[in-house]
Amino acid sequence: MIVEPSERARGARSSIIREILRLTQDGAVLSLAGGIPAAEAIPLEELREAAATLPVAAFQYTPTEGYGPLRALLAQRASQELDRPVGEEQVLVTGGSQQALDLLGRVLLDPGDVVAMEHPGYLGAIQALEAWQPSFLPIDVDRDGMRVDLLARALAGGARPKLVYTVPDFSNPSGATLAAERRRELAALADRYGFLIVEDDPYGHLRFAGARQPAIATLSDRVVRLQTVSKSLAPGLRVGWVVGPADLTGLLVRAKQAADLQASTTGQALAAALLGRPGWAERQAARVTPLYAERARALSAALRRHAADVLDVPEPEGGMFLWGRVTTPGADTDALLRAAIAEGVAFVPGGAFAVPGGGSLRDGLRLSYATLDLADLDEAARRLAAALHR
Amino acid sequence: MIVEPSERARGARSSIIREILRLTQDGAVLSLAGGIPAAEAIPLEELREAAATLPVAAFQYTPTEGYGPLRALLAQRASQELDRPVGEEQVLVTGGSQQALDLLGRVLLDPGDVVAMEHPGYLGAIQALEAWQPSFLPIDVDRDGMRVDLLARALAGGARPKLVYTVPDFSNPSGATLAAERRRELAALADRYGFLIVEDDPYGHLRFAGARQPAIATLSDRVVRLQTVSKSLAPGLRVGWVVGPADLTGLLVRAKQAADLQASTTGQALAAALLGRPGWAERQAARVTPLYAERARALSAALRRHAADVLDVPEPEGGMFLWGRVTTPGADTDALLRAAIAEGVAFVPGGAFAVPGGGSLRDGLRLSYATLDLADLDEAARRLAAALHR
Repeated sequence: MIVEPSERARGARSSIIREILRLTQDGAVLSLAGGIPAAEAIPLEELREAAATLPVAAFQYTPTEGYGPLRALLAQRASQELDRPVGEEQVLVTGGSQQALDLLGRVLLDPGDVVAMEHPGYLGAIQALEAWQPSFLPIDVDRDGMRVDLLARALAGGARPKLVYTVPDFSNPSGATLAAERRRELAALADRYGFLIVEDDPYGHLRFAGARQPAIATLSDRVVRLQTVSKSLAPGLRVGWVVGPADLTGLLVRAKQAADLQASTTGQALAAALLGRPGWAERQAARVTPLYAERARALSAALRRHAADVLDVPEPEGGMFLWGRVTTPGADTDALLRAAIAEGVAFVPGGAFAVPGGGSLRDGLRLSYATLDLADLDEAARRLAAALHR
Repeated sequence: MIVEPSERARGARSSIIREILRLTQDGAVLSLAGGIPAAEAIPLEELREAAATLPVAAFQYTPTEGYGPLRALLAQRASQELDRPVGEEQVLVTGGSQQALDLLGRVLLDPGDVVAMEHPGYLGAIQALEAWQPSFLPIDVDRDGMRVDLLARALAGGARPKLVYTVPDFSNPSGATLAAERRRELAALADRYGFLIVEDDPYGHLRFAGARQPAIATLSDRVVRLQTVSKSLAPGLRVGWVVGPADLTGLLVRAKQAADLQASTTGQALAAALLGRPGWAERQAARVTPLYAERARALSAALRRHAADVLDVPEPEGGMFLWGRVTTPGADTDALLRAAIAEGVAFVPGGAFAVPGGGSLRDGLRLSYATLDLADLDEAARRLAAALHR
């Protein structure tokens, strides 16, 4: 190095997922490791058509807060979704939800501040928040999502998190949905102990079974809600948004100004063009959800067929992921990954989703069914079973 | 606030330019305050046409390092520009140059590290780097750019900057171009004292007078070069890029992964589509440069006509800005701005560009000629003169 890296840079870790992706680019490997939407789920023709009539303003600078037409639309949608008036000043458009997590860390966390996080937890959130040197408090997840009872116990024992992070619908990686009663308990705890809930909701619109649960933001004001078009429209636009208390979004705007001025105007204008069409979001969800439902069921069934003796995989109600636990004693999915790649299939080992301070999750693995067709899903399950049985 | 902001967030300042823009949105005010390209300089039809045939990959996730076709193109262009082989691993696509500055601060600066910076300096760079709590070393600028002799003196006196920041061509706000001899001296100092030069070059292609100077990156390996399509194509794409030593770009990639995963794939694909056409960049520069040349001359001439007795404004050789100094004793351009807005014209007061620890620049003002037509430029100069003469 020409000059010394900062302490923060020396501590940064690379994403294991991106390293796995590198190993699986030769085409011979069927990848269940990704977290990307199916290409068929991206409305290419509609995007191209909308792009062909964008105004010049879609290519100019725009306010840090967001492209006017999009921000107005998002405030209106949030008002409907949360069933209370949400003003534009409560909305900030970000470069995907990843940036929202980074900005939240930037404006809220001093080194050593406590962040409670569901465990296993979303790797991107761990990476984003870790950069701000918090102390993590891992909270185990079961089939009904984060164990809010364990959080309550930690709080009663004196823990004072500043943030509590959760993906309440079809979590990444657990696939679990936070039960309605737990949402109410979590909201009540936030009000009692004064922490902020980060409700990261990229998958909520991808429900293919079970009943819709209330957004946590409908249950408390101490919630910042993150959403994105990455799973519902197109991740390459890099358009996410924050809905939260206006004083918090104001801080985030200032931080975003220094970080990158604004999200892509072009991406925002395309998102506004499609989301602004009456009923479009609902039609798109109705188009994509059956695709993922079919694939989720196919992969679940294939895994039961080929590997029920060694792998426990609950069926999700939506989203893009299955979370498996290897039931053989001493399971190590880091080692399993090498065997799996030799068999021609990839996944993400559970350890990647371990919140610092939590268990190792060595028996866990995340399987995405979003991008493979039914035949490939069956073949991938067969190969994974072969690796498991070796 | 629901929870306490971090120390960093409490210290963050808002951009005065964005506050001025808010004051000038009613249309009655002619704004010389912006830093945005002329709408006529954005090739709207070409962008729309390119958008109408984008592949689905342009809407998907893409590697943090950048969209493959764009990164290959940028490495090739850099190899030509710098007249030595530049590998793709030395290139990282960022969300505009603003993000490159933020990431550089993130991976290189620990609190108290010294950043030498031309003074007056680019406000966005001050904001981005300030977030990482460095100690600034302001280096005065004259008509030949940064006074490298003053930097040499500070180094001889024991100053040890980690970074030295400069906009060598048509600087923002000074409009000055760093003289060739100073570039060589600066490069030699970097090699001698072991600092990294941040060569921020958003305007280099907008030269309308004088001879082209060598990029500092051709004179030393201790240079990270920042470029962008914001002034040459369209800022709303949010596509900038870093060319630097591979170990540094590797650190930046890891930081960007945590910060926002990647720049907009769609923006990158559109940039690649246009920049990839043989001769396109040169044709676009040939189309835009005369427009800015004409406007620069018109504003300079109008200011000489209306305000030569109170305002000194050198003519730039390119870029988008004039840097004026009010010659009346005790000049205060913060106060002048209020009078100017009352007259119906806006500019950015010099104090916005003061590097912490440098002079107040209260007699300075930045005037952008990029977005007004010739009649409006003359009227804006007349109004500014009226405010100056009050």
